[in-house]
Amino acid sequence: MENEKHVSKAVISRLPRYYRTLRQLAVEGVGRISSKDLAAQMDLTASQIRQDLSCFGGFGQQGYGYSVDKLIVELERILGVAASQRAILLGVGNLGRALLRNFDFSFCGVRPVAAFDTDETVIGCDFRGIPVHALRELERLCELERPDIAVLCVPSDATRPIAERLVRAGIRGIWNFSNESLREDLIGVPVENVHFSDSLMKLCYRIKDTDPFEFGE
Amino acid sequence: MENEKHVSKAVISRLPRYYRTLRQLAVEGVGRISSKDLAAQMDLTASQIRQDLSCFGGFGQQGYGYSVDKLIVELERILGVAASQRAILLGVGNLGRALLRNFDFSFCGVRPVAAFDTDETVIGCDFRGIPVHALRELERLCELERPDIAVLCVPSDATRPIAERLVRAGIRGIWNFSNESLREDLIGVPVENVHFSDSLMKLCYRIKDTDPFEFGE
Repeated sequence: MENEKHVSKAVISRLPRYYRTLRQLAVEGVGRISSKDLAAQMDLTASQIRQDLSCFGGFGQQGYGYSVDKLIVELERILGVAASQRAILLGVGNLGRALLRNFDFSFCGVRPVAAFDTDETVIGCDFRGIPVHALRELERLCELERPDIAVLCVPSDATRPIAERLVRAGIRGIWNFSNESLREDLIGVPVENVHFSDSLMKLCYRIKDTDPFEFGE
Repeated sequence: MENEKHVSKAVISRLPRYYRTLRQLAVEGVGRISSKDLAAQMDLTASQIRQDLSCFGGFGQQGYGYSVDKLIVELERILGVAASQRAILLGVGNLGRALLRNFDFSFCGVRPVAAFDTDETVIGCDFRGIPVHALRELERLCELERPDIAVLCVPSDATRPIAERLVRAGIRGIWNFSNESLREDLIGVPVENVHFSDSLMKLCYRIKDTDPFEFGE
């Protein structure tokens, strides 16, 4: 995979969608798929799909299409999904609980190992087997558990100081759900800031020219 | 704005990021910005920014750059943020509560007007002034409140039936947080499926080749 390092950000940002779509196809019992059919599923063009996947060596065969299982395995390798990253979660409020209770971390090859909060009423609880520790235990637990990723669900004003503390404790990547965006150049490790507003704005854009609500008039 | 209808999906998907970045610049007191500086902030190239914004008429001036406030107003118009869409939320579990309590709907020009659940212990509560109704009241309340957008935070098996019920009740767009993706061609209105896994996988990709956790060794 010589050229894997030169893959554009746009392609990388599409890979999780490929992975999701292919996993769904596997669940539906689809063994192989043409670039045309995959394109229709993903709302892309067949040539874009061939181009995207060729960035990683191109696993399709003329007249056969792509083997769904093989492509899944390749994407898992490329995405690092198979790497079994360990995660900790900070801030066990509503959003933190929703993630601990309902989010399928294993789909991404990630294993949550501990959660942290400052609220005494939640410290000592566990969610699907993940124990909630006092935040003051962070450094000790990081030494013990050696997590790779931190999931931030803390209030805005706590985001930056906790991020810096996490990086000092050896965290290699931050998945940030707080309302305060983190700048990678200031934090020093990869950050994915999750912005719910982006998808809501896209939805607003898409419905703005459709007919307004009409109900029995 | 003759050519606004021909704007590519890629450009549209970047617009919310432009909007977020510009709003942040306004908060920081920045009045105008060159495409070069905006590019540095957004991790894009200056020529891509000029190209993207020119799709909507191009508001920059040679040697002056872009007026942050003007661009915000234009983007609000384009995105439909200024349209004051009305939203209802279904499923007041941890994620639903997190959105009602902490998400800034007004940033996207959206106003939540009601929430729904089947759990008697939460019906009758309110979150930041948004009342929680019994799900059986959905049709009656839709007739009364005329919401545009439904925010789905319901369990997977309830997603499809509730989406169909919402569309029959006149909903024009669905913001779907459930684990079950909705296909627009089957639902008949624009859907934005929120996939937390996409950003986590991107993070895994980005850290997979960095040094593993080292702590005092």
